[in-house]
Amino acid sequence: MEKKIAVLPGDGIGKEIVAGAIEVLKVVAEEYNHQFIFEYGRLGGEAIDVDGTPLPQATVDLCKDSDAILLGAVGGPKWDQNTPALRPEAGLLAIRKELGLFANLRPVQAISSLTDASTLKKEVIDGVDLMIVRELTGGIYFGSPRERREENGQRMVVDTLSYTNEEIERIIRKAFELAMIRNKKVTSVDKANVLESSRVWREIANEVAKDFPEVELEHMLVDNAAMQLIRAPKQFDVMVTENMFGDILSDEASMLTGSLGMLSSASLSANGPGLYEPAHGSAPDIAGQNKANPLATILSTAMMLKYSFNLIEEGNVIEEAVNRVLEKGYRTADISEENTKLTSTTEMVEQVINEI
Amino acid sequence: MEKKIAVLPGDGIGKEIVAGAIEVLKVVAEEYNHQFIFEYGRLGGEAIDVDGTPLPQATVDLCKDSDAILLGAVGGPKWDQNTPALRPEAGLLAIRKELGLFANLRPVQAISSLTDASTLKKEVIDGVDLMIVRELTGGIYFGSPRERREENGQRMVVDTLSYTNEEIERIIRKAFELAMIRNKKVTSVDKANVLESSRVWREIANEVAKDFPEVELEHMLVDNAAMQLIRAPKQFDVMVTENMFGDILSDEASMLTGSLGMLSSASLSANGPGLYEPAHGSAPDIAGQNKANPLATILSTAMMLKYSFNLIEEGNVIEEAVNRVLEKGYRTADISEENTKLTSTTEMVEQVINEI
Ligand SMILES: CC(C)[C@H](C(=O)O)[C@@H](O)C(=O)O
Ligand SMILES: CC(C)[C@H](C(=O)O)[C@@H](O)C(=O)O
Repeated sequence: MEKKIAVLPGDGIGKEIVAGAIEVLKVVAEEYNHQFIFEYGRLGGEAIDVDGTPLPQATVDLCKDSDAILLGAVGGPKWDQNTPALRPEAGLLAIRKELGLFANLRPVQAISSLTDASTLKKEVIDGVDLMIVRELTGGIYFGSPRERREENGQRMVVDTLSYTNEEIERIIRKAFELAMIRNKKVTSVDKANVLESSRVWREIANEVAKDFPEVELEHMLVDNAAMQLIRAPKQFDVMVTENMFGDILSDEASMLTGSLGMLSSASLSANGPGLYEPAHGSAPDIAGQNKANPLATILSTAMMLKYSFNLIEEGNVIEEAVNRVLEKGYRTADISEENTKLTSTTEMVEQVINEI
Repeated sequence: MEKKIAVLPGDGIGKEIVAGAIEVLKVVAEEYNHQFIFEYGRLGGEAIDVDGTPLPQATVDLCKDSDAILLGAVGGPKWDQNTPALRPEAGLLAIRKELGLFANLRPVQAISSLTDASTLKKEVIDGVDLMIVRELTGGIYFGSPRERREENGQRMVVDTLSYTNEEIERIIRKAFELAMIRNKKVTSVDKANVLESSRVWREIANEVAKDFPEVELEHMLVDNAAMQLIRAPKQFDVMVTENMFGDILSDEASMLTGSLGMLSSASLSANGPGLYEPAHGSAPDIAGQNKANPLATILSTAMMLKYSFNLIEEGNVIEEAVNRVLEKGYRTADISEENTKLTSTTEMVEQVINEI
């Protein structure tokens, strides 16, 4: 199989972790006789510095012309004081919108060799295996008007949460499709006792559910969901929700495993290339020190192989290699504990490759 | 001191827990020579049944004519299928708005005799003492337009997050005032990398901070806050945020203590009476069975004594009584564990009274 992968290392630790993940992909390609062609583009802070915009057109073109996208992370204090449009995150929001990446998949799986890293009790998280499906190109992130105003002599400010029925339907349908290949349960999270958009969301979820009679659908209010994720996370299989709720809940859920350094993500569109990135940020404080945890990025490439290229076995091989490395006690600083082996970024990559 | 207290028992377990809390208040009144006059009103489901509306005008008048309001809880399956305007929660939203209850205070304190009840590790929550200050009468809960539309032949739906600068300023100021009598740190939670309203929020927080040079102000993005609450909750003193973020984060934070049955809340206005209620719901499944935990409601009356009547000693007496009862091992079903004494609602109230 020949595939073209757009690589956007981004800022901070982005370059190191992406370099490591690409080494892993190359080994898999050799082992299984595939050809992965990597082409590089700029996004975020680096793009602001070089191109004067966080998402240059060349990067958009590169991505559209690829089969999948591997992203490191963007952002850093250097650009924090910029105007909103010239901040690295603006590039992230823009690429999601440009490529129609409406479905953000955030799997959260307890890794038994790591359960001590969590602040939650072992018995609460042992066996957790859930997937948050977050709507990524609509809602209050993109609605208009979003502006400061003066009304009756009062200064005020407005943001708008808006969704077309179609946008709601396609993300909920995606959640049901995922539930079909998982444990056949969808928890749709909304705030239907307050928001009109949530009422529409709930109605559409009930409609879509009719096409998936094998899947159990449950509705949960977002405040309750924020509790239940800590109280009893094993109750969840697929959780689907709108953009802002998904932002909050997926970061909350990431704490179940104890470290953001282990969590991968995929952002999928209807027909175009999917984008794969670690759930964590660019960690400028440890950039360039060969300390960053490359596992979330490596696990993101496993998602890429599975979701974009349908290379299920190859994806599994990577995931199993990561598990074995952890079982052997190798740990980057973010997940290190007593009686484990402190491991650098490049060593960790080597260990994973050894296990493939 | 003579005070008039409006009592709104509401639905489900509301009547039992409010009855218990009033007994406690009566004992305190006797002990300290105050006169509390209780007058009853309807809110929520009961009001829908009797008055045809979740918030009858008589209840509004009663509240406005009182020095403080004690609320049980509203809601139940009986009214779940009603149209939004005829649901019990609509009464809750309406009373907040009618009485201008813009500041919702939700203290979260680890109770050492109860730390085993949490799903978080003991060392993570031991010593937690934070207060979430949630804006309660603005934001996406009340903004307009909020409607379904058709645009370019597409069905869509819109909700609006809006704030006047004044609304933002008064809640942030309240948070700083509270920090001054606590540990002098304010964490302002927003989503300034996405929302225009959050950018205004952050600017105003920086302005208000100038009036409180002794208080440390920190800004935190809401997704990060959702993580930090689980990762390291002891870092927080006062956390202030807008309505919807506050709804989610305060319920998430409530899990730190292991049971919603222990958490009190106060909702304050600029000049009018404050409203005090437990953070939990009406628990229709156990209503009328003398099983409900009255402690959150009892602790809410302690907040009432302190915040509305400035009766600090009397409030402390109630809090200390509750602590002693827990130390002696009395537990309602929601917090019962091995080697504790299973206690009914009425017995629990008696135990608290014995300790006063
Ligand atoms: C950087 C920010 C705009 C972004 C978001 O809120 O979507 C981030 O938090 C994420 O979840 O990818
Ligand atoms: C019942 C609901 C409308 C309410 C809210 O979201 O404000 C509740 O969750 C709360 O926090 O008091």
